[in-house]
Amino acid sequence: MTKQERAERTRHALIRSAAAVFEQYGYAQARLALIAAGAGVSTGALHFHFENKAAVAAAVEAEASHALRAASRGVYRRKTTALQALTDTSHALAHLLRRDTVTRAGFRLSGDATRSGEVDLRRQWQDCVQQLLTEAAGEGSLVSGVPRADMAATIVAATTGFEVLGRRNSEWLSRYSLTGFWQLLLPRLATPEALTRLDPAGVDSLAVPARSLPDHAPPRLANPALRF
Amino acid sequence: MTKQERAERTRHALIRSAAAVFEQYGYAQARLALIAAGAGVSTGALHFHFENKAAVAAAVEAEASHALRAASRGVYRRKTTALQALTDTSHALAHLLRRDTVTRAGFRLSGDATRSGEVDLRRQWQDCVQQLLTEAAGEGSLVSGVPRADMAATIVAATTGFEVLGRRNSEWLSRYSLTGFWQLLLPRLATPEALTRLDPAGVDSLAVPARSLPDHAPPRLANPALRF
Repeated sequence: MTKQERAERTRHALIRSAAAVFEQYGYAQARLALIAAGAGVSTGALHFHFENKAAVAAAVEAEASHALRAASRGVYRRKTTALQALTDTSHALAHLLRRDTVTRAGFRLSGDATRSGEVDLRRQWQDCVQQLLTEAAGEGSLVSGVPRADMAATIVAATTGFEVLGRRNSEWLSRYSLTGFWQLLLPRLATPEALTRLDPAGVDSLAVPARSLPDHAPPRLANPALRF
Repeated sequence: MTKQERAERTRHALIRSAAAVFEQYGYAQARLALIAAGAGVSTGALHFHFENKAAVAAAVEAEASHALRAASRGVYRRKTTALQALTDTSHALAHLLRRDTVTRAGFRLSGDATRSGEVDLRRQWQDCVQQLLTEAAGEGSLVSGVPRADMAATIVAATTGFEVLGRRNSEWLSRYSLTGFWQLLLPRLATPEALTRLDPAGVDSLAVPARSLPDHAPPRLANPALRF
C-alpha cells in the first residue's frame, strides 16, 4: 500500500468515525478527539486531513451527497419511466439512510439550522424530485388538474419526514413504509395508463436483491410504525 | 400585582426567552445566562424557577404541548366531520409553528435525538392524526382499499417534513403549502361523497380571521417554496 493509499484510507476512516460521533452527540457536542479515536488515529493525524470540525462535517456531507448522486444515477441508468425512477430513487435513499451512517449523518448535518454547510442534501433531493417530475410531465404520464409544485412539495415533505422520524424508529424508513406511501400517492400523480406500469415497491437497482433484505415483506402490509 | 402573579409572569418570560435561545443556538449550545438576560432577570432568578437547562427545556415542551392540545380542542369543539377536523388541526398547527416561538422550539426539542424529554410532541401529533382517522372511519367517510396506517404514516411524515423544512423557509408552513397538500391527498382518503363537503384550505377556528392573515391567498396557488 502506497503512502497515498494509506492517507486515503485514514481520511475515509475519519469520515465514517465523524459520522458516527455526529449522529450520537450532534454537531455542536462532537469532540475531535473522539472522532480521531474512532478512526484509530491521533488528533494530530486528524488535523493533517481536516483543519477543524467544520471541515470534517463538510467532508461527511460531501460523501453523503456523492452516495445520493450515485444511487440516483444507478436508478436513472436503467431507463424506466420517470415516475418509476422517482419511486426507485426514494427507495434507494431510504436504503442508504437505513444502512449508511455517513448518509444519515450528512442529512442530519444539512438539516441542522444552527450551522450552514456548502452542501445542502435536502436541496439536492428536492432538485432530484423536481427534475423527475418534469421528465414525467414530458412523458405525458402525470394526471392533469394537480399542480406539479404540490406533487413535488408533498413528496419532498413526506420523504423528509420519513428521514427525520426514521432517526428514532427505523421502521419509518422500511420498504413497507415507502411502499405504502407510494401506493397511496401514485394514483394522484400518474395517469391511469401510466399507473398500471408502476411498481410502488420499487424496481430494485441495488446490488442486494430486495428479497434478501430483512425488512422486505409483501408490499400490501401497512407501515408497522403506525399500526392502529 | 401579587408576588405570585409576578413569579408566574417571570416564569413565562423565561420560557419564551429559552424558546428563542434554543431556536437560535440549539439545545446543546444554549446558555442559561443568555436565557435569563432575554427575560430581563438574573441567572439566580432563573434558578428560582428551574433547576437546570433540562428543566427549562421541559417547560418549553410542556407549553408547546398545551398549545397544540388547545388548538386541537378548539377545532374539535366546532363539530365538523373528522377529516375536516384533521385538515383544520394541521392548519392550526402550521399557524402555531409560523407564529409561536415556543411551539417551534418545543417541536425542535422533541425532535432532537441527542436528548429525550418527557413530552414527545411528534408522538402527540401522531396520536391526534390516528384518532381523527379512526373517527373518520367510524363516520364511514374513508375510501376502502387504502390501509388506514398508510394514510396516517403519509400525513404524519408530510406534516413532520413541513415542520422541519419550515425552519429554514417558512413558506413550507404557509396556508398555500398545506392547502396544496390536502388538495392532493384528500381524494385518496375520503369517499367521493365525503370529499364534496371538505375544504382543504381549512375552516378557520382561530380568533384571527383567515382573510387578515398575510399568508392567505386563493387555495389553488401552488406551494411557492417549490415553484417550477
